[in-house]
Amino acid sequence: MPWSAEDPALLTPGPLTTRIETRRAMLRDWGSRDRAFIALTAELRQRLLAVAGAEASHVAIPLQGSGTFIVEAAIATLLPPSGKLLVLANGSYGERMIAIATRLDRSVEALRWPEDRPVEPERVDAALAADPAITHVALVHCETTSGILNPFEAVAAVVARHGRPLILDAMSSFGALPIDLSTTPATAVLASSNKGLEGVPGLGFALVERQAIAAAKGNSPSTSLDLHDQWRGFEGNGQWRFTPPVQVVAALVEALRLLEAEGGPAARLRRYQDNFDTLAAGMVRMGFRLFLDPAVQAPIIATFHPLDDPRVTFEPFYEALAARGFLIYPGKLTRADSFRIGCIGALDRNDFQALLVAIEDTLSEMRR
Amino acid sequence: MPWSAEDPALLTPGPLTTRIETRRAMLRDWGSRDRAFIALTAELRQRLLAVAGAEASHVAIPLQGSGTFIVEAAIATLLPPSGKLLVLANGSYGERMIAIATRLDRSVEALRWPEDRPVEPERVDAALAADPAITHVALVHCETTSGILNPFEAVAAVVARHGRPLILDAMSSFGALPIDLSTTPATAVLASSNKGLEGVPGLGFALVERQAIAAAKGNSPSTSLDLHDQWRGFEGNGQWRFTPPVQVVAALVEALRLLEAEGGPAARLRRYQDNFDTLAAGMVRMGFRLFLDPAVQAPIIATFHPLDDPRVTFEPFYEALAARGFLIYPGKLTRADSFRIGCIGALDRNDFQALLVAIEDTLSEMRR
Repeated sequence: MPWSAEDPALLTPGPLTTRIETRRAMLRDWGSRDRAFIALTAELRQRLLAVAGAEASHVAIPLQGSGTFIVEAAIATLLPPSGKLLVLANGSYGERMIAIATRLDRSVEALRWPEDRPVEPERVDAALAADPAITHVALVHCETTSGILNPFEAVAAVVARHGRPLILDAMSSFGALPIDLSTTPATAVLASSNKGLEGVPGLGFALVERQAIAAAKGNSPSTSLDLHDQWRGFEGNGQWRFTPPVQVVAALVEALRLLEAEGGPAARLRRYQDNFDTLAAGMVRMGFRLFLDPAVQAPIIATFHPLDDPRVTFEPFYEALAARGFLIYPGKLTRADSFRIGCIGALDRNDFQALLVAIEDTLSEMRR
Repeated sequence: MPWSAEDPALLTPGPLTTRIETRRAMLRDWGSRDRAFIALTAELRQRLLAVAGAEASHVAIPLQGSGTFIVEAAIATLLPPSGKLLVLANGSYGERMIAIATRLDRSVEALRWPEDRPVEPERVDAALAADPAITHVALVHCETTSGILNPFEAVAAVVARHGRPLILDAMSSFGALPIDLSTTPATAVLASSNKGLEGVPGLGFALVERQAIAAAKGNSPSTSLDLHDQWRGFEGNGQWRFTPPVQVVAALVEALRLLEAEGGPAARLRRYQDNFDTLAAGMVRMGFRLFLDPAVQAPIIATFHPLDDPRVTFEPFYEALAARGFLIYPGKLTRADSFRIGCIGALDRNDFQALLVAIEDTLSEMRR
């Protein structure tokens, strides 16, 4: 489709480009305590479980707010005040979990890796063996900071062998990268409406093992960010405890139907991989280099080193692409000079070919 | 407009019926860190201040989530851990503030009144004189529980005379009932997108005195629900700290433009009063009695005693109206047998006349 400065393609890690059918689902009003919306909420919760093969073991708990809200709610609810969280960190979202738990006055231990290196299960193994006080482990599946993929299944196996619950932040991977909770042990998986599921922002959700959430009563110091109470509300009368963003819910249900129609996460991953491959090949042709080793790269967001050309600076590059209808991510990595282009959202290889044309055009203009 | 079971009028205290222009504003995607959305956020914050005459004294801090989230964030941020909150309570929302502060481990004192009696400034005066440890006072402007209007201006004068900051929960009054912060002293005013402003749900906001928010660094135990940090984020680069619900923001800005076009809060109040008067007169003609004394009734939500007729029970009454395209509030008061009909939202006297016809029709069907 022809993108424009007024209606640009979002090449960002979310909010991202959604399908018009998803946005059209927001054109009606819903009574949040009426039967029709209760049915919509039930469909939402069932579909979220189905994406991760979690119907038999987990419950789905959607929560108002952004991804950070659901991460904080999960830590506050699942860790008792006497708990100790081990965070496996190789980017901003791991660091944010450490900050959240620290402010909540929970004991936290951090294992850190550089931004271009995946979490290593062996170090996790050693850390758990060394510290029996650790009660929970937290991992970011795909670190949106760099786009690196962490080895969820291998880490989950180690954590399960030590009998500790694992909290997986699957914010940017859920709906595309494989997460099968019927075969991989994880106590809680967290994500939001506006990334791989291709809904609009405004909602997070946790898939939590039924026994774990049942045992978590009274842990959270927050009324709003209490996943146990939120779950009890849904189980009680099918309603949200506090006013839900009804249009955002309707959009997410529509997006989940579209995910199923596309062929589920496996088909979506193929499209994102095709987006990434198209982008990466074109960028390399123009002289850009990828920040990450291909072996650890998730096809979610691509991080590039800047060109070694003083005429090509980030701000004018960003603005020239925006004027052509393409918004790339306007932030930088914390430690390395670099820029990022998202590969997720309702976009396909045609959109990325059009982006490459716009980038080529922009570069020759900047070098003129 | 002709309402139907599929697209009903919402006679509830929010989410409520919005204008189609407001919902259409959600049809595009926005890059949340792009210049266009930064401008939209700036317009949102400026318009929210303007509604309450607060441009010179306060800052506007929108927050992801429902009304409860902004109430909790305000208490967590404005009260230091050593603070003590006096809550003036005559309904569920006052009680919820007590529960929120208690869970946050803040000292709380409650002054209570029955659900049909307004808060009395004299008792507040005496309580503040008696307990110098009280650092903050919280009042609900219009208690949606019953629809009662509390005397904001008189309470604000008493609280200011004692030199204490006042936190006003204006959830269901903001945008319609008079709130002028250039003449009435209140440190913080809290509301949400989906009531008198007639936006869609998904956002709350606080208008906070500039010095008070500047002094509130580090008070909140929550990363997500920290209004000081949220404010610093906006002041720093115009962006939201964490992913905003971009479509909900766009809808609220459109709703604020429509509020201005309608003639501002005074014109909106006239329409709501007309809605309430039309409803109340028609209901009284059919034998219903209002729960509240007209002298303390806000034209936001009307609470009625049930008819003294065993053939007319609530569930079938609700369902028959829903089938005719009218959703009334499906909950009941905590203490008295009663039901409620909201008067706010993008509705006018014609809609309430149509509702009265539907109620009349339903009653004769139930009595057949």
